[in-house]
Amino acid sequence: MERIRTTEVREHVGERVRLQGWLHTLRRLGGVNFLVLRDGWGTMQAVTEHEADLAALTGEELQSETLITLDGLVVASAQAPGGIELHQPQVTVLNPVREALPVLISKRAIKAQLPVLLDHAVVTNRHPGRRAVFRLSAAVMAAFRGYLGGVGFTEVQTPKVVASATESGANVFAIDYFGRPAYLAQSPQFYKQIMVGVFERVFEVGPVFRAEPHATARHLSEYVSLDVELGFIENHFTIMALLRDLLAHIFATLESQHAAELALVGAKLPTILPTIPHLHFSEAKELVYQLHGVDERNEPDLSPQEERWLGAWAQQEHGSDFLFVTGYPMSKRPFYTHADPARPAYSNSFDLLFRGMELVTGGQRLHRYADYLSALAARNLSPEPFVGYLEAFRYGMPPHGGFAIGLERLLMQLTGAANLRETTLFPRDLTRLTP
Amino acid sequence: MERIRTTEVREHVGERVRLQGWLHTLRRLGGVNFLVLRDGWGTMQAVTEHEADLAALTGEELQSETLITLDGLVVASAQAPGGIELHQPQVTVLNPVREALPVLISKRAIKAQLPVLLDHAVVTNRHPGRRAVFRLSAAVMAAFRGYLGGVGFTEVQTPKVVASATESGANVFAIDYFGRPAYLAQSPQFYKQIMVGVFERVFEVGPVFRAEPHATARHLSEYVSLDVELGFIENHFTIMALLRDLLAHIFATLESQHAAELALVGAKLPTILPTIPHLHFSEAKELVYQLHGVDERNEPDLSPQEERWLGAWAQQEHGSDFLFVTGYPMSKRPFYTHADPARPAYSNSFDLLFRGMELVTGGQRLHRYADYLSALAARNLSPEPFVGYLEAFRYGMPPHGGFAIGLERLLMQLTGAANLRETTLFPRDLTRLTP
Repeated sequence: MERIRTTEVREHVGERVRLQGWLHTLRRLGGVNFLVLRDGWGTMQAVTEHEADLAALTGEELQSETLITLDGLVVASAQAPGGIELHQPQVTVLNPVREALPVLISKRAIKAQLPVLLDHAVVTNRHPGRRAVFRLSAAVMAAFRGYLGGVGFTEVQTPKVVASATESGANVFAIDYFGRPAYLAQSPQFYKQIMVGVFERVFEVGPVFRAEPHATARHLSEYVSLDVELGFIENHFTIMALLRDLLAHIFATLESQHAAELALVGAKLPTILPTIPHLHFSEAKELVYQLHGVDERNEPDLSPQEERWLGAWAQQEHGSDFLFVTGYPMSKRPFYTHADPARPAYSNSFDLLFRGMELVTGGQRLHRYADYLSALAARNLSPEPFVGYLEAFRYGMPPHGGFAIGLERLLMQLTGAANLRETTLFPRDLTRLTP
Repeated sequence: MERIRTTEVREHVGERVRLQGWLHTLRRLGGVNFLVLRDGWGTMQAVTEHEADLAALTGEELQSETLITLDGLVVASAQAPGGIELHQPQVTVLNPVREALPVLISKRAIKAQLPVLLDHAVVTNRHPGRRAVFRLSAAVMAAFRGYLGGVGFTEVQTPKVVASATESGANVFAIDYFGRPAYLAQSPQFYKQIMVGVFERVFEVGPVFRAEPHATARHLSEYVSLDVELGFIENHFTIMALLRDLLAHIFATLESQHAAELALVGAKLPTILPTIPHLHFSEAKELVYQLHGVDERNEPDLSPQEERWLGAWAQQEHGSDFLFVTGYPMSKRPFYTHADPARPAYSNSFDLLFRGMELVTGGQRLHRYADYLSALAARNLSPEPFVGYLEAFRYGMPPHGGFAIGLERLLMQLTGAANLRETTLFPRDLTRLTP
């Protein structure tokens, strides 16, 4: 008999089928016994009143995660999870597990503290709820690429080992590159801009590396960045409109194709309006002051608390889970940032808050070679480490800009996870380098 | 007037249209002048007998790569490239270029030597022929993901910063990770195996890093690996069958959707038979000895010359651009390799040669915890650095295996490039770290 997947069982009511997978749970309740098998796609319950049907497992007291082949008769049953279950099960052991799991993964939620859960991510990632998060993550990447491919973007893969720090020189990991110093890319920023000169519209999905010497619930030292850059823009509002449509496509895809995973993790899809509300940075500061009496109007950035207040305001005032804050002060933005022509102390940049947390940073970049030389000089930076990058602007670049979405942040806010580490397979932070 | 793309012009014969892009070439042949504009998608020729139409460019002697807006009347013309051209052009300069390019990119082929071409990759990547290679590269990634997504694989993103060297400990780049030693992942091997325990079938597209202290035309120190791993296999032949179908899908996609790029780079699609011919390693060695009189039958690996001979044999004997060599000696394969049960000195592994060069390495892995402990002990390796990885096998893993396709190798053999560096945007090698 050929093996089928748990997700295919419902097409075979009244037939005997063969499943293969992991022993997820085995409950022996006196007269009746429940076995749940988990394969790569879902779970399936088998029921029997005959202890002998389970002898292959119970004789040796095999543990959860034992690999088994499970044959059984497919029966519709109102009580069964999903409305079907297997009767008259026949179990064969493929690979026995004799040790108890370090962390139980058969309950609806994993009971372990986060560090323990992450120490044993190799096993805890098998938990159906965690799998759902990672499947949603894969779906977000696919929808991101699909949408952009449809509007003329080309995918690129740019180097992660670079000769100079991408943006500020701070918080980069140093590498021994055949005896020379090199660094891990903080972002594909320079390369995606260069590639606007080649393809006009590019995207990249890949790892970025930040040597942040602090531990917060919303930072990782390695994460997946969804990067976009495009040419021939009017200003940052061109980019914000694209970003809005891209996110709407991503969430619509999750809704239509991943309802089961969303339900399993209790995620509520966000409301994304036809035009996401936007506030200028100076308005946002003023609003926080007026609503909460906290005067940080002279600070050049938003604190996490301010982001939460602004997110709550957008929800209350506009019924929106998203809020653009535009025009961040130039003083806090990197040298390639394009100033607002009307108010040069502010930039043509934006952050997108999702449920009160920064999800995306983006903006318009400089595109004239002379402007780059001026911007570097104004910051006392030598152009020398940037020669390759600057070559793009020497030889013709259009007005352009882009943004970067943090994949784990998106999943964190979508699923309501308390910590970014819950949304990545094998997180890396100040202290965590394994598994 | 709204800007359209060069690829959309043919839908507007008889109308005036607006293009924007780079001044690719300007030829003034006495009575008639030809201007070619390049945008992110293609090129379009404009023709005029009136020098005055080009005054915006010629007055200031602007150079190639100047950014322009080009309005013109779309006219069908048998002589024009692609059968259409613009008449009565009107040119506006968006961003002038006054310096001559370091490398000419307007000819059919770039004349520069490879190091010069790569030094100026920021500009030379704009060459239409090079763009076509990178578009094909993007198309290969998309087709790879599309096929695997359709047969139940889940995409994963695994860490590139790791605590211990993935396979051999040799040829890894060391990182300063907050004062602790860490390494750049040579491959996602351990993680993709672990993820078989989660999703059964996984793939990853991402950078891998090899600190190879030698310079060859077919190695890079950072490249893109297309990784696949799947559970519940019979043996390596299960994997080889999947790989064959995956490659057939990729090439069929290129044929149906990227004929223009294939033509531009002169690439000839390979012949991929319903079953790719395969030779056991020992047969391959014997064949080389018989055909070429070179006796390397005691060597545990194939040399590049042997791979070329075997590729030529597959072409001549089977009309196949591909050849599987199976059963490489266990002595040359990493500790997680599954031996051939019938001939334990040989492995259940394979390489796939594409036109006489190794394109893919793959095989069946061990799946029992006890087998891992034995394999490590036999190689005098401590299990300690592998504790996280080994946890997967402690708690139930099915027979599994996979493979890794080198993206740049695939493009190199497809396009007939002489050097792998020609097929990557910004290559990294022993001496090259910029741009």
